[in-house]
Amino acid sequence: MPPAPIAPLAVSLGDPAGIGPEVVAKCWDHRSAFNLPAFLAVGDGRSLSAVWDGPIVTIDDPRDADAAFDVGLPVIHIAAADADIPGRPSVAGAHCSLDSLEIAVGLARSGSASAVVTGPVSKQQLYAIGFAHPGQTEFVAERCGVASENVAMMLAGPTLRTVPVTTHLPFAEVPGHLNPSLVESRGRATLRGLQRNFGIADPRLAVAALNPHAGEGGALGSEEQDIIRPAVEALLAEGWQVVGPLPADTMFHEGARSQYDAALCMYHDQALIPLKALHFEEGVNITLGLPIVRTAPDHGTAFDIAGEDRADPRAMAAAIRMAANCAAIRAAQ
Amino acid sequence: MPPAPIAPLAVSLGDPAGIGPEVVAKCWDHRSAFNLPAFLAVGDGRSLSAVWDGPIVTIDDPRDADAAFDVGLPVIHIAAADADIPGRPSVAGAHCSLDSLEIAVGLARSGSASAVVTGPVSKQQLYAIGFAHPGQTEFVAERCGVASENVAMMLAGPTLRTVPVTTHLPFAEVPGHLNPSLVESRGRATLRGLQRNFGIADPRLAVAALNPHAGEGGALGSEEQDIIRPAVEALLAEGWQVVGPLPADTMFHEGARSQYDAALCMYHDQALIPLKALHFEEGVNITLGLPIVRTAPDHGTAFDIAGEDRADPRAMAAAIRMAANCAAIRAAQ
Repeated sequence: MPPAPIAPLAVSLGDPAGIGPEVVAKCWDHRSAFNLPAFLAVGDGRSLSAVWDGPIVTIDDPRDADAAFDVGLPVIHIAAADADIPGRPSVAGAHCSLDSLEIAVGLARSGSASAVVTGPVSKQQLYAIGFAHPGQTEFVAERCGVASENVAMMLAGPTLRTVPVTTHLPFAEVPGHLNPSLVESRGRATLRGLQRNFGIADPRLAVAALNPHAGEGGALGSEEQDIIRPAVEALLAEGWQVVGPLPADTMFHEGARSQYDAALCMYHDQALIPLKALHFEEGVNITLGLPIVRTAPDHGTAFDIAGEDRADPRAMAAAIRMAANCAAIRAAQ
Repeated sequence: MPPAPIAPLAVSLGDPAGIGPEVVAKCWDHRSAFNLPAFLAVGDGRSLSAVWDGPIVTIDDPRDADAAFDVGLPVIHIAAADADIPGRPSVAGAHCSLDSLEIAVGLARSGSASAVVTGPVSKQQLYAIGFAHPGQTEFVAERCGVASENVAMMLAGPTLRTVPVTTHLPFAEVPGHLNPSLVESRGRATLRGLQRNFGIADPRLAVAALNPHAGEGGALGSEEQDIIRPAVEALLAEGWQVVGPLPADTMFHEGARSQYDAALCMYHDQALIPLKALHFEEGVNITLGLPIVRTAPDHGTAFDIAGEDRADPRAMAAAIRMAANCAAIRAAQ
């Protein structure tokens, strides 16, 4: 079991009509097999009982979570206006998911929770109620007072951690969004995040090329020379351990992965293809650069299978476990 | 052991100063453990003896290869003008590698060899002696009288086969090179190649999207709607089993891979990242759409380690084994 955190973990259930409630409940069911510390859920308790027969303990004070966790799943109840129907997202459910996120983040900010784990929300539903952030990551960053260019989205599995420099962009727009400053700041956020959340004193960063064969000296593209190499050199000048730009196709086999602690990737699929090829069931999204620990399972609401008892809880369990480990490492610093 | 092919396999040694001779020799050493059928090498016998103490049987007639294979590595000797020094590529070595390729392909074209396996060459060295093809694949296609758009480069490992629609292009030029006709013809070459070389009667093709999340209905790019979907529909109209465009990041985990026989990818790294992450030591390059079987190990000359007895022969062994299997499947058709 990970070292006991100072306070319980706060887990927002995400959209009440998605698979968030089901995977959180299954994590409590299998808390021993999954090696999980005490956590409390934040969300509509009815979204849990709609998909789960297990014991729920409604609490008002996070300090009650530890004791409650032994007898049931502790829940800080945020009522959606209507009863939630699995697989049928609603405006009321979107409000509930946003309120749950807000409260879970607030608990972590105040120290009443040692970390926040966010369940999957529907961006489409959130946008419909006026949510103005691209996603939960940017919302959490804003609540923590951190500029979005100084946070980094890391995808982490048992043998690989990747951080995309750009995220949700059309393929054709990626080159235009890359610049030395952005690559450098994402690289620095990654290196600092490895120190702070994973306790790696002298972290090793591998930086991927954009072009095949790392551009072959310019014959297959110039971004390596013009954008990536200057960023690598700036980080090296600060004393960090950095290599690259490396040909992306030979960075992710077992022998290569053992040479670095995280891979900085230039675009979404470059980071996500290897991570999900290797660790599909247990990928964790962790936001680096925040004053709090925030993780999330690397999957969505999956409305199409909600309520069918088919959702795999392993990614949520991995997210809870990683949050606990990172919180313990931070507490010891 | 794979079914005995009709004629021996011809294996060109590639650049005599690269690791080609070493990995071919190691394949003969471990022919039993690697489960390899009889093959003959084409190249400078001295490049073998420079890195290997094993027995070499110089032959003139490929029909002698089967008997010779029991006592040594059969070699059709192509002298380089100078003695070859491992790790030091030369003009003479480049000529030797080109002559070896020409003869090995000719043996396969004439039926004297059941397939050709090509060792790694140095494109830089070949260009210096006037080689006008982008690589060995295009050379072999021309010698076989097949237009290059009708061949497809497949990368194959034990649990994944991928085919890139575009190959050695700068990242920024990929969108401009994609069009429905090209995606369709590469898809068709892949499907026919699965039938012809792998004996899959009704092959299943998964087609990757270009943009993250398959473009999210146009919000993250339009190539899925404008280019890839029309190609998929054209192939479906011909009766092929095709799905896509699919989000590339969720196509390559174990459960997803079991749903298709090959993945059609839009660009080099999209095909190569998952293949090498999963099967780095045993990736085989097979050219689809040719009248002959042609495979190659998915690695280069590695001049930096040539002559140091460090080269891993598993990819070459996998290429020889796959060539034998494909030749046997074709012979039975």
